[in-house]
Amino acid sequence: MGNEQHDILLQFGDSLRKIRTQKRLSQTQLAFETDLTREYINRLENGKVNISLINISIIAKVLDIHISQLLPQNK
Amino acid sequence: MGNEQHDILLQFGDSLRKIRTQKRLSQTQLAFETDLTREYINRLENGKVNISLINISIIAKVLDIHISQLLPQNK
Repeated sequence: MGNEQHDILLQFGDSLRKIRTQKRLSQTQLAFETDLTREYINRLENGKVNISLINISIIAKVLDIHISQLLPQNK
Repeated sequence: MGNEQHDILLQFGDSLRKIRTQKRLSQTQLAFETDLTREYINRLENGKVNISLINISIIAKVLDIHISQLLPQNK
């Protein structure tokens, strides 16, 4: 995986952690609400998972945000 | 896969086909530029692939657009 691609996963993870904490949800609560595992949420937030579009949409729905809010803002 | 999730893949596919054709790129050309297969691009455009974030970013970069332009606009 190239640096640029790894950066995208890290940026996604940072956005997820920021929004999750803004919404005062723990990783465990988000895992429960999304039916994903806490370990998966934790690996996501540390840029270790090349997440799929469906999982992005599940997480965005639970956080009540638009998918694009989880994505890197610059092109 | 639920309907809602299938819809997201279909919407992604529609957005990809629309932008690709606006940019006057064939599936074969997009496949060559992204180093993905034409068959994969075709299955994507028909909502049959739960694409990963890295592949979304590779495609967006080649199309010279922001990732969010490939994503469903409504929440």
